[in-house]
Amino acid sequence: MSAIPEILEVETSHQVGSLASVLTTFCQAGFSVDDVRAKSRNPMTTCWELTVTAKSEVTLAEVAARVEKLPIAHVVGLSNRILKRHRGGKIVMRSTEEITSLEVLRDVYTPGVAQVCRAIQQNPEAAREYTYISNTVAVITNGTAILGLGDIGPVAGMPVMEGKAALFQQLAGINGIPILMKCKDVATVVATIEAIAPSFGAIQLEDFAAPECFDIEIELKKRLNIPVMHDDQHGTAVVVLAALLSATKRYDIDLHHSVIGQIGLGAAGIGICSLLIDYGVKHVLGTDLSEMALQRLESLGGRRSTLQGVMAEADIVIATTGAKGLIKPEMVRKGQIILALSNPEPEIEPQVALARGAWCALDGKVANNVLGFPGIFRGALDARATHISREMLLAAAYALSEMGGRDELLPDCLDRTVHARVADAVHAVAR
Amino acid sequence: MSAIPEILEVETSHQVGSLASVLTTFCQAGFSVDDVRAKSRNPMTTCWELTVTAKSEVTLAEVAARVEKLPIAHVVGLSNRILKRHRGGKIVMRSTEEITSLEVLRDVYTPGVAQVCRAIQQNPEAAREYTYISNTVAVITNGTAILGLGDIGPVAGMPVMEGKAALFQQLAGINGIPILMKCKDVATVVATIEAIAPSFGAIQLEDFAAPECFDIEIELKKRLNIPVMHDDQHGTAVVVLAALLSATKRYDIDLHHSVIGQIGLGAAGIGICSLLIDYGVKHVLGTDLSEMALQRLESLGGRRSTLQGVMAEADIVIATTGAKGLIKPEMVRKGQIILALSNPEPEIEPQVALARGAWCALDGKVANNVLGFPGIFRGALDARATHISREMLLAAAYALSEMGGRDELLPDCLDRTVHARVADAVHAVAR
Repeated sequence: MSAIPEILEVETSHQVGSLASVLTTFCQAGFSVDDVRAKSRNPMTTCWELTVTAKSEVTLAEVAARVEKLPIAHVVGLSNRILKRHRGGKIVMRSTEEITSLEVLRDVYTPGVAQVCRAIQQNPEAAREYTYISNTVAVITNGTAILGLGDIGPVAGMPVMEGKAALFQQLAGINGIPILMKCKDVATVVATIEAIAPSFGAIQLEDFAAPECFDIEIELKKRLNIPVMHDDQHGTAVVVLAALLSATKRYDIDLHHSVIGQIGLGAAGIGICSLLIDYGVKHVLGTDLSEMALQRLESLGGRRSTLQGVMAEADIVIATTGAKGLIKPEMVRKGQIILALSNPEPEIEPQVALARGAWCALDGKVANNVLGFPGIFRGALDARATHISREMLLAAAYALSEMGGRDELLPDCLDRTVHARVADAVHAVAR
Repeated sequence: MSAIPEILEVETSHQVGSLASVLTTFCQAGFSVDDVRAKSRNPMTTCWELTVTAKSEVTLAEVAARVEKLPIAHVVGLSNRILKRHRGGKIVMRSTEEITSLEVLRDVYTPGVAQVCRAIQQNPEAAREYTYISNTVAVITNGTAILGLGDIGPVAGMPVMEGKAALFQQLAGINGIPILMKCKDVATVVATIEAIAPSFGAIQLEDFAAPECFDIEIELKKRLNIPVMHDDQHGTAVVVLAALLSATKRYDIDLHHSVIGQIGLGAAGIGICSLLIDYGVKHVLGTDLSEMALQRLESLGGRRSTLQGVMAEADIVIATTGAKGLIKPEMVRKGQIILALSNPEPEIEPQVALARGAWCALDGKVANNVLGFPGIFRGALDARATHISREMLLAAAYALSEMGGRDELLPDCLDRTVHARVADAVHAVAR
């Protein structure tokens, strides 16, 4: 079952009902239609871009074959627009100067460059001013937990890393450098990153699987004097805390004394739990299939429970399991706040939870990491921070929460001022 | 003794002889003045940019103090223009798209990106088309042999790596990614580069010291199926062979049967020797202080000699020792071709060698690596080569040699068509 939305191009003849019959075919095969756009139109046909998600075991190829059998439709294929946007990659490294004269060549290369090398040799702090290192973040993965796709390897994960690098530049003016590693064991990952760390001003760990991700981050933080952050843990946690602060304010709830129930204690679950406890939450219950994950929860100060226990006791439920529909409607209690964060399909659809009396329900599409990492790293780099502290993460969450609108718990991630304000908040605390 | 040119700013009052007295002060302290430019002028003073090289043990600080004592001059400091060109670094990573709408965000990030990840997972070859990897070269150093400055560490070497990355983009449209490593031993360097190799389409090793550089390159070539090239060895060799082909054509000499004498058998010396033998040169003599270097020469098919032996026997002398003035004028024989390549100060000044009857004499300023590496990597990447072969290096040398003008043995490195023609030649052979 393909659980991630696909964007397809389908051509239909100009006949009444042609699009409807295509959509019906998808629905009958168990696909939900998330979006429909007319992409182009000629005298004979219209080309539609459909975003669909499989909700059954039928494959995309099977449903495409069924659509092909309709006399009025033709499946062109996966979206060319997405592939086109990826052709040749999504990032480029550029020189800041046009090198078209001997003067420039001699300044940026030999002999001029030697002057700058020597300045740095004499005073290593000069590297901050005269190289791009202090504005550069490595985006590192070993491909073991890419999106919801799992261990697909580092190269297949590259489009995600390039996407993060593109967002770093666009939203925060940071150079993001994707680094793909083919090793999996903690010791080799740590040794490799430590060896290349002088190249960067900070390190963002991306899509490393649990439980290795915890030890990798802890060990790197010990060894390096530049910020290291596993985004899946802490980026997610910041955005979740921000959403909870907005939600509890709206419903006049005291988050400190609420009972938090965590379903799923992987990278995101543990990251969220840890930040909430640091924020001051007193009561955290948690459940997971892994005994090691439960012990990790207890070591943070949480208490082990069960799915039923969490749903019965918690005021606020946070699910990060990857298991679609895990929370049954009848488990929801009136007045609960439910964050069912698994992407692309939540543990319970927000509208179902709301219908069962939840005061507030969010899914992972709303609580997106992209609200966090650009501003957090911008602030850390600008403050010359040697690490990203709990206080910096909390400051980022407060800033995001303050920017939520009347109807939205969180602000717009494409609004550049959002990231600037997160950066300012992080910077202020780091100093 | 500072052997690398310094670019200084000096202010003089508007008085007859003020500049002359500044220059005289430098000369009396044993500095050669390589260049003088009026940078700015106001009613009272002129600001000059002086390029000077120490030829004695006097330090720049000492001579600056002497200049300061002149009533009509003031040393502003090291060139602001060079420092300004380095401020914030010389390269930037950019997104190829402006990410300002949800459509673009959803295409380049979630959910659209998953489609591309899966396409690559199913067919790893798709990474060539839909990521930036196939147009990306790592520029890797551990800082053990930066320019003529020696083992100054990787971070102090960063301005050189950024310069190479900037040149890669400007001259060949390649993404150059600087990687600084803090390890020195062969095994760790190799293991680290192997672990991060999936991130790149090719690897350029930069300024690794001999003899470790040889084993590092050999081992990486064995383990990786992407091009790996140590530029100090092979880039230099290509440019030297090109210059020799031009020179021997001009003087109607048969390079195959000439006696080549190599003085200095470090990374560059061994690289040159090796390529010349592959080209078809029959007689190579060499000398070095290191017994290991001499054995390496013999293993390539060369014969050990002495400085005096080389100068007495060789038709073509190639010096890469870093030892200024090592070749005494009286050692030069009529009709010799002498490449004294140490930078910034050659083993013998070309004009001195010419005055002693050499037919042709070049220094390292003319034979610059920047003529080689951009086109070699462009050609290798375009041809999807898994390694850079001898034939590809020879093709690059032939192409460069054909582009030399009537008066110059080598073409202009800022002429973009030069690199395109090198790339074409390399590409044609690689296929």
